[in-house]
Amino acid sequence: MDLKDTIRSIPDFPEKGVIFRDITTLLKNPEALKQAVDDIETALSDVDYDIIVAPESRGFIFGMPLAYNCSKGFVPIRKKGKLPAETVSREYALEYGTATIEMHLDAIEKGQKVVIVDDLLATGGTAKAMIELVESVGAEVSALCFLIELDFLNGRETLKDYNIKSILHY
Amino acid sequence: MDLKDTIRSIPDFPEKGVIFRDITTLLKNPEALKQAVDDIETALSDVDYDIIVAPESRGFIFGMPLAYNCSKGFVPIRKKGKLPAETVSREYALEYGTATIEMHLDAIEKGQKVVIVDDLLATGGTAKAMIELVESVGAEVSALCFLIELDFLNGRETLKDYNIKSILHY
Repeated sequence: MDLKDTIRSIPDFPEKGVIFRDITTLLKNPEALKQAVDDIETALSDVDYDIIVAPESRGFIFGMPLAYNCSKGFVPIRKKGKLPAETVSREYALEYGTATIEMHLDAIEKGQKVVIVDDLLATGGTAKAMIELVESVGAEVSALCFLIELDFLNGRETLKDYNIKSILHY
Repeated sequence: MDLKDTIRSIPDFPEKGVIFRDITTLLKNPEALKQAVDDIETALSDVDYDIIVAPESRGFIFGMPLAYNCSKGFVPIRKKGKLPAETVSREYALEYGTATIEMHLDAIEKGQKVVIVDDLLATGGTAKAMIELVESVGAEVSALCFLIELDFLNGRETLKDYNIKSILHY
């Protein structure tokens, strides 16, 4: 199955001029859902890693079935104020203003090898902040895996020192 | 494994007097993660259903591996303004103020049987709003499944006409 056939493109969302790639139409299709998770697992089959890190909330969608299937632990990165124990945090730039993401300080052990999973690579701003969080606790980013990469936003350039895997390109 | 041994209890979060049941310590443990997902699947083994619905963001954590394992589609319910196509929405009461959740209007077919999955059943306010969303498009709620039920908040009473499955009770 061509997964792109199950992704809906919505013009002018969230703002004029942007084409939003809507994965909810992929997710409600059991075969497409299964293939998307399997394709991510296959893309990471040559990567050595201990644990999966994914950001709230769409990163959870692919990070968790991957963790289950590969018998790895799962670490959520969340928006500021959501995690109850001691955290490390990073602020990063958005088009207008900034956002802050957090990870539990004890979520990952020093020296562990991490794969970061998210649904979409756009400019790479969130991914860069996640890498900084992981490295700030002494862990190592083995790879980042995205279901969709928006090539024209050059996120891969922002993350050029890292191993990037993407399943679909627009 | 007793999954409760892997859940961290944090006093006075998010406010004084509340004991927060932190599942991030369960999730980073691969065996506990696997058992939690398997226990949810087992709890639903006698339920006839077509599709899984789960709310942003912690509902995604257990809803997605369940969807994968049981070859079902997955429908995300999200906070207001996040879903790009036409939605149905419900406002519901929080302790202070209200919140609004949305689901795509075309996410579920009329007559489909739905299981709602979330990490926690507290007062049942969010669950009630999700049931109303599902029923508003002519679908049927076969069951609701929660990893954790806070018995003293009587959410089960709010949802008394529905089939409730919970794995752990506090």
